[in-house]
Amino acid sequence: MTDAKIRLFVDCPLGAGQGVALSEGQANYLFAVMRLPLGAGVLVFNGTDGEWLATVAEGGKRTGRLVCLDPARPQVMPPDLWLLFAPVKKERTQFIVEKAVELGAARLCPVQTRFTNAERLRVDKARAHAIEAAEQCGATFVPPVEEVQPLDRLLSGWPEGRRILWADESLITTRQTLAALTPGPWAVLIGPEGGFSVEERDRLRAHPAVVPVSLGPRILRAETAAIAALTLWQSTLGDWT
Amino acid sequence: MTDAKIRLFVDCPLGAGQGVALSEGQANYLFAVMRLPLGAGVLVFNGTDGEWLATVAEGGKRTGRLVCLDPARPQVMPPDLWLLFAPVKKERTQFIVEKAVELGAARLCPVQTRFTNAERLRVDKARAHAIEAAEQCGATFVPPVEEVQPLDRLLSGWPEGRRILWADESLITTRQTLAALTPGPWAVLIGPEGGFSVEERDRLRAHPAVVPVSLGPRILRAETAAIAALTLWQSTLGDWT
Repeated sequence: MTDAKIRLFVDCPLGAGQGVALSEGQANYLFAVMRLPLGAGVLVFNGTDGEWLATVAEGGKRTGRLVCLDPARPQVMPPDLWLLFAPVKKERTQFIVEKAVELGAARLCPVQTRFTNAERLRVDKARAHAIEAAEQCGATFVPPVEEVQPLDRLLSGWPEGRRILWADESLITTRQTLAALTPGPWAVLIGPEGGFSVEERDRLRAHPAVVPVSLGPRILRAETAAIAALTLWQSTLGDWT
Repeated sequence: MTDAKIRLFVDCPLGAGQGVALSEGQANYLFAVMRLPLGAGVLVFNGTDGEWLATVAEGGKRTGRLVCLDPARPQVMPPDLWLLFAPVKKERTQFIVEKAVELGAARLCPVQTRFTNAERLRVDKARAHAIEAAEQCGATFVPPVEEVQPLDRLLSGWPEGRRILWADESLITTRQTLAALTPGPWAVLIGPEGGFSVEERDRLRAHPAVVPVSLGPRILRAETAAIAALTLWQSTLGDWT
């Protein structure tokens, strides 16, 4: 049982002796695909109560129940960092979501920009990908994925005190900008493949929360920029100490 | 012609008036797929002579010839940074190659470790992916992809003076390590999905060229670790100034 390799995100409270009802998909995966027997160990987490070792109490092809035994890992919350990103093509958007979970973003906010086709993002699928990424990378937290919002509206109602590290392709400094960052709530903003429009760039430059940063002299694809910017923030102000 | 959007890597010298024979694949792409007419503009680069605006002089479905007109962008060489990586699953290895080109690695060295199946890497395909990535990201340099080498042999014959930034999952410092790095020839080393073996870790820790660094408290997949480590090096010692 200590060999439990399967990790599942579950939507219920966790604690010693707590029963965990499985969804149809989870029951199918555990009992039809992985063929776990009664008494087998499974790791579960719900995003708030840490990771628990649970054991199979009932299992069928469509239903099943686990019971929590022992705490396996404490709850670890990511730093207060949001990722604002313009959805790109399906596979690469999936990648952005997966990587943001691995790299420890606390919230994912898809934004519609002038050169974004927001139809591209299925928020329900993005949420499922975030859960899957957390299950696979050992995270105990799953960042919420917000509904797509137009960039304009997001900037107009931007919360006071939260700054935005903007991966600005026209800017040339990286080190100086990073050295000057100060702790607090932050977001990282990544543009769409076609870049931001002239109006959007002007608006971003004039916004008091926005801090532009360069990601080097080469053109990065959106998902590379997302990973690079999250990495720079985490290693400067975040939990990569 | 100034709207030339297509960028091609070509394997011949470039200069004003220089003719460029196209490969069958390139001719097919330009004339059968993209249906470029005679006189249309194409951007070409060869990894050493910068980017040139060329024009279609002859075009058929299987052959074709361009002629260089004007220099479009100067040759930009990446910093002296190698990426040593253990091949993972096909798609994700492709991703590592693509991202290493975007992020400015100068050489890609696939390594066989205890937990790597080196059969996974087709070096010819990896080279093609490196070219494709350079064509797409606007780079004028294509990093060579070496043949797969066992980690042991690589470490035994390691060139004096080149250090290795090793993404060590057991280590906990990021900032302190980065702050202490000094310029010079470097490589970044990323392990396979299953991590390094105990013997490999001992060997790496004892090697005089190796500098371990943490990539934060969460488990990163191999391709995420590659992007994150290249980003940290570039923003500390490289051309992300």
